[in-house]
Amino acid sequence: MISNHKNNSPIERLVSELHKLPGIGPKTAQRLAYYLVRISKDDAIKLAESIKAVKERIDFCSECFDITESNPCRICSDNGRDKTRICIVEEPLDVRALEKTRSYSGTYHVLHGVISPMNDIGPDNLRIDALFQRMKLLEVEEIIIATNPNVEGEATALYIQRLLEPFQVKITRPARGLPVGGDLEYADEVTLSMAMEGRQPF
Amino acid sequence: MISNHKNNSPIERLVSELHKLPGIGPKTAQRLAYYLVRISKDDAIKLAESIKAVKERIDFCSECFDITESNPCRICSDNGRDKTRICIVEEPLDVRALEKTRSYSGTYHVLHGVISPMNDIGPDNLRIDALFQRMKLLEVEEIIIATNPNVEGEATALYIQRLLEPFQVKITRPARGLPVGGDLEYADEVTLSMAMEGRQPF
Repeated sequence: MISNHKNNSPIERLVSELHKLPGIGPKTAQRLAYYLVRISKDDAIKLAESIKAVKERIDFCSECFDITESNPCRICSDNGRDKTRICIVEEPLDVRALEKTRSYSGTYHVLHGVISPMNDIGPDNLRIDALFQRMKLLEVEEIIIATNPNVEGEATALYIQRLLEPFQVKITRPARGLPVGGDLEYADEVTLSMAMEGRQPF
Repeated sequence: MISNHKNNSPIERLVSELHKLPGIGPKTAQRLAYYLVRISKDDAIKLAESIKAVKERIDFCSECFDITESNPCRICSDNGRDKTRICIVEEPLDVRALEKTRSYSGTYHVLHGVISPMNDIGPDNLRIDALFQRMKLLEVEEIIIATNPNVEGEATALYIQRLLEPFQVKITRPARGLPVGGDLEYADEVTLSMAMEGRQPF
């Protein structure tokens, strides 16, 4: 514990608030707090205000649960997007990553997490029910399950895939294989065997 | 550049503000911003308010230039501290580190940086003049130059040591040697040779 809330000076409170952020340990929190003391008041206020603005102006899209300023979000309200395809992702950041590729013109569905018994997160904590509500309303042809290619992501994908079976919808997932720019020599065995299994005509 | 200030949504602005913090790269800034979207509004407001509080309530001590809520700071206004000793440090965090040891009962002087021609920081950008003003007013017996044991810290220490020569004051610096808990085998050559040179009776 860095912060003792009995003698909490502003700097100690700031350190303890920063320490709550993910990936920010006690030392980094302290370094950031002292940095914020040093910079101009204007710059610090800008940061504080932008945190507030995000909480005041950002909400979740009622359809895909991506974060958005307007509801439904830009993607869900875009008639140019293919509404028959839904790509399921874990986090809003995954939507940003996929949008950057410009290779997908369907819609998304953000789960806001993965099934993780270790962290006490079950299917009920995710936006899975809402996905089925959407599927009843829309004529969906393809569901792309793009959870992360790790244990929890795969388990969540499997869980959703089983629930989707009665819907008679095409279920796909992004290809597993060698990352571009990577070295075959350094690829792990699972990736390499998946790349071999999924080999494609040249 | 992550942020394009032409289409700056609140989230993009927050990412760009977070990215300005030291040690926070574009990916971490994005991750933190999305984390702040996810947490409760109360928690986010607490962080924003604690940043503002720091700027509004924290100032520099007019004597030692440590950060403080009251001027002079707690250490400078404490009559139990030995005013004949001044320990020169680079940053307020160094004062915190030394205070934790409870092995020093003198006062401090915070330079707020080191001489670093690469970063365009010369002696005039540091609180060196203020140190000499203090020395004229107080009867100082010992100056401990506790800048960091790296190139810039050593250069700054040397610079200050030369300026202090006319004052006929004892100038010391913290011992160099093997860190406790470290391995002799893994100590770098400079540290090891300093540890041997500065060897002490058992």
